[in-house]
Amino acid sequence: MIVVLAGGVGAARFLQGLVQVVSQEQITVIVNTGDDREFYGLHVSPDIDIVMYTLAGLIDEKNGWGIINDTHYTMQQLTQYGNEDWFTLGDRDLATHIHRTNLLRQGKTLAEITDELRRHLGLSLRILPMSDQIVATHIQTPRGLIHFEEYFVKHQCADEMQGVVFIGADAAKPAPGVLDAIKQADTILIAPSNPIVSIGSILSVPGIHDALHEASGMIVAVSPIVGGAPIKGPADKLMKGVGQEVSAVGVARCYRDFLDVMVIDERDADLVGAIEDLGIPTIVTNTIMSDLSAKVELAQTVLRAAS
Amino acid sequence: MIVVLAGGVGAARFLQGLVQVVSQEQITVIVNTGDDREFYGLHVSPDIDIVMYTLAGLIDEKNGWGIINDTHYTMQQLTQYGNEDWFTLGDRDLATHIHRTNLLRQGKTLAEITDELRRHLGLSLRILPMSDQIVATHIQTPRGLIHFEEYFVKHQCADEMQGVVFIGADAAKPAPGVLDAIKQADTILIAPSNPIVSIGSILSVPGIHDALHEASGMIVAVSPIVGGAPIKGPADKLMKGVGQEVSAVGVARCYRDFLDVMVIDERDADLVGAIEDLGIPTIVTNTIMSDLSAKVELAQTVLRAAS
Repeated sequence: MIVVLAGGVGAARFLQGLVQVVSQEQITVIVNTGDDREFYGLHVSPDIDIVMYTLAGLIDEKNGWGIINDTHYTMQQLTQYGNEDWFTLGDRDLATHIHRTNLLRQGKTLAEITDELRRHLGLSLRILPMSDQIVATHIQTPRGLIHFEEYFVKHQCADEMQGVVFIGADAAKPAPGVLDAIKQADTILIAPSNPIVSIGSILSVPGIHDALHEASGMIVAVSPIVGGAPIKGPADKLMKGVGQEVSAVGVARCYRDFLDVMVIDERDADLVGAIEDLGIPTIVTNTIMSDLSAKVELAQTVLRAAS
Repeated sequence: MIVVLAGGVGAARFLQGLVQVVSQEQITVIVNTGDDREFYGLHVSPDIDIVMYTLAGLIDEKNGWGIINDTHYTMQQLTQYGNEDWFTLGDRDLATHIHRTNLLRQGKTLAEITDELRRHLGLSLRILPMSDQIVATHIQTPRGLIHFEEYFVKHQCADEMQGVVFIGADAAKPAPGVLDAIKQADTILIAPSNPIVSIGSILSVPGIHDALHEASGMIVAVSPIVGGAPIKGPADKLMKGVGQEVSAVGVARCYRDFLDVMVIDERDADLVGAIEDLGIPTIVTNTIMSDLSAKVELAQTVLRAAS
């Protein structure tokens, strides 16, 4: 059994390769829900949706999020009613949020709803939210705490980043199945996701960090930082903001408590020594997932590293 | 000041003529909300939306409901998640329901939300829901009570209609402004709407029937039944079901407690005697609103009848 800790776009692209190498039935993905937020009263789970849409072949590959060729008529009308429109939600995409919100209001848990959605999308891997409770990732800035989506999407990281707060994490519990999956996994992969807000948010849920620390399976991480910059997203600003070096070394430091093997890009081959000085064996490979064959090769390399 | 009691399509078309004859600022429409129902957890107010969309020039004239040229991508995706699709909601239309539901959950009343929506749609007439409380029109059938939308849209009136129940009406109050508008109106028009479920639902809200009975303004009704059949909708089945004659005479009987003048179609000229026997002066005119000029002429005739 393989467990993958996942954020959004980077994780989803990594999973596209992984499902070509091992059957979906062997995979449990534990997904960041710290970016979840209500828009127009609808519960949006960006990273869960990115993972589901990507694996279901629905994703808008260019953006990395949303449904391919989606239209935006509902949002256009919503803005006519005075609503904000900085977080783009397509018409087909909105069905996911409407359905999820309806089931949440009926008393179902996010984990139950996610499981139902992925089945309807024809996926047979298990997708677990990190928690059924609300954990809201906020960025500490000079003008106060800002929800991650507002910081990232609305303000495009314009505010100085001084720290991260996972509001609600203290009272949150790992979703049913999360701790058992980590405990029982032969292999635990940390996808090339933002270590501060995506994986960091998962680690903020009490019990998950300890479960990783105690896990008997091999834990392998893929660095999302290549050549001193993230492939996508604001990981550089966030790492800098928490005083972490923006490099594969910085990523390894985020995970050093439990990491067994680090996988870094060829362009960062000179960092092997620094990471191995942390006591973490390091593998150098091509981590740029430019097409499906690159994704498959990365998955194969990572699985070999784990065995 | 003119008050109009309104259901959906017939009322909206009548109002299209009325707003050509008097300024919107002089008109208060009291709209049936007994047909309201949640779909996918979203609060849909069919008659309010038909009235708003029609007057805002957004209506799909052919159907009489929904927004012209609307797409249905959200619903297609919702059905992929196992949802029913018998009540068609277009993408632009859904924005109305999403926005309304969001504001309801934030604690705003249906009256406040309706007022906000009609302003955003550029309307300057006042649109009041009959009540801020939920009144759910149900049809009594051999297999039990069925919500009106299910009876009408889902089952297309297939069940034998044995009666109408307005669930929640006993505890409902007229929305703020409804009783005052009736009291202060010079003219009260009952649109050519279904007397049993549309106007009947409005009359089921405690206080409204009495206010009409005591109103000092002239009360004029336009018959929605022409030549023994409704122009649109299931009024014939519903009138029969409650033991009422399916004719302009039957309509007049529904309103006899408070009606001052009845307006009927030329094709029903032979019914004048029967209606006047009820003590209700009757005017014969063309009530078929085939185009805008017919709507304007009907509005002019009705206003003349009221003065």
